[in-house]
Amino acid sequence: MTFDNMSGWVKIAGLGPGDAALVTPEVMAALAEATDVVGYIPYVARIAPRPGLTLHPSDNRVELDRAGHALQMAAAGGRVVVVSSGDPGVFAMASAVFEALEAHPEYADVPIAVLPGITAMLAAAARAGAPLGHDFCAINLSDNLKPFDLVLRRVRLAAEGDFAMGFYNPRSASRPHQFGQVLAALREAGAGPRLITFARAVSTPEERLLTVTVDQATEDMADMRTVVLVGNSATRRVGNYVYTPRSA
Amino acid sequence: MTFDNMSGWVKIAGLGPGDAALVTPEVMAALAEATDVVGYIPYVARIAPRPGLTLHPSDNRVELDRAGHALQMAAAGGRVVVVSSGDPGVFAMASAVFEALEAHPEYADVPIAVLPGITAMLAAAARAGAPLGHDFCAINLSDNLKPFDLVLRRVRLAAEGDFAMGFYNPRSASRPHQFGQVLAALREAGAGPRLITFARAVSTPEERLLTVTVDQATEDMADMRTVVLVGNSATRRVGNYVYTPRSA
Repeated sequence: MTFDNMSGWVKIAGLGPGDAALVTPEVMAALAEATDVVGYIPYVARIAPRPGLTLHPSDNRVELDRAGHALQMAAAGGRVVVVSSGDPGVFAMASAVFEALEAHPEYADVPIAVLPGITAMLAAAARAGAPLGHDFCAINLSDNLKPFDLVLRRVRLAAEGDFAMGFYNPRSASRPHQFGQVLAALREAGAGPRLITFARAVSTPEERLLTVTVDQATEDMADMRTVVLVGNSATRRVGNYVYTPRSA
Repeated sequence: MTFDNMSGWVKIAGLGPGDAALVTPEVMAALAEATDVVGYIPYVARIAPRPGLTLHPSDNRVELDRAGHALQMAAAGGRVVVVSSGDPGVFAMASAVFEALEAHPEYADVPIAVLPGITAMLAAAARAGAPLGHDFCAINLSDNLKPFDLVLRRVRLAAEGDFAMGFYNPRSASRPHQFGQVLAALREAGAGPRLITFARAVSTPEERLLTVTVDQATEDMADMRTVVLVGNSATRRVGNYVYTPRSA
């Protein structure tokens, strides 16, 4: 597999949480070489237009179609960057591209690379202090592609193991009340006294952080642009920071 | 808290896994403003010397002393960057700095910021494909600061919840056989058929990736420079890639 510019390729690139200062040079270099950029509308909107670059914004929930389109353009010689916010390997486009590759063996020879980025959970943790400073679980709370029972089961096991946790997609307009069930599951598992941080739109002008206990948390503290960080039983405050000691 | 250059500060910065193309512009800007850099010897060795910058490399296992030194220099007006490899909030220096702050309330007014980086687990996942493409746990296998029983307990719960997993510090010269116990715990939990990727020194000239099943894995496949990625029950190969579908 080669990534010279004599033939097509797909690079699945993480744009980080929002601030351009959190985009890696590797991702910027891929964008500079690209002929095409595909991705969800608000992520493609972050790419500066230039001659020779075609932007292909698409709607949410069409990830497989978008991934197939990227492979098709690359097979035809395009240098295609698939953009995700955060890290493409964490609840983002990388898995969708490999699912599309599995469904379309005719694209088996297209070179594919995943370019990591700063994922929302870790950007949020950095802003809060170090709440994920020891063992942690990352859980996507959306039941769009899996049963909600599995979400609750994983939350309970993570609490039982005294893991810290990062929750993606905690709440949306179409499922306003499931996050309340997650909070209830945490309380039932004895995690009520733990610290929980709601981090919204980290590294953008709309950034807002709120830390309370799980007992104090309410479902309206989260929305679609929030990642939620739950500490383990040793997570605590020092000054304005929230951190988990290395020994927990 | 301000980060103007009229007074001291501490920025805890993630250098990523090794390749300079994976260091964020935010981290490069902090290094350009710094008067002092502290960190573990091989990480400080990655910083280019320049006039006005003092490098303070220190040995492994002195994280708290190093953190206290950073706060002390910042309180005296220094602009101090504490360097970690990967992301400082993931099994790295951020928690150590907050532990030191808790122990030294005289430094409460020192501005502190955490600058995220590409953590080894996600850099490794990107190289492999997307093995952490759905819910996953990050577990530090070292018993340097916690009982090994807690490590095994978390591995078992993560397997029971069908989480993918990323293991840091899987094995060292001083504990050559604990990783074998982790592999045994995975097999006992029914995870023997799952894919496991050993990713060594990702993004450096010594990079090496090996994917086998947990049943096929042996403890000598890991060393101090390896992160280990365990898939969930749906993780599979497509071409040369390993990925976890979004629906798992």
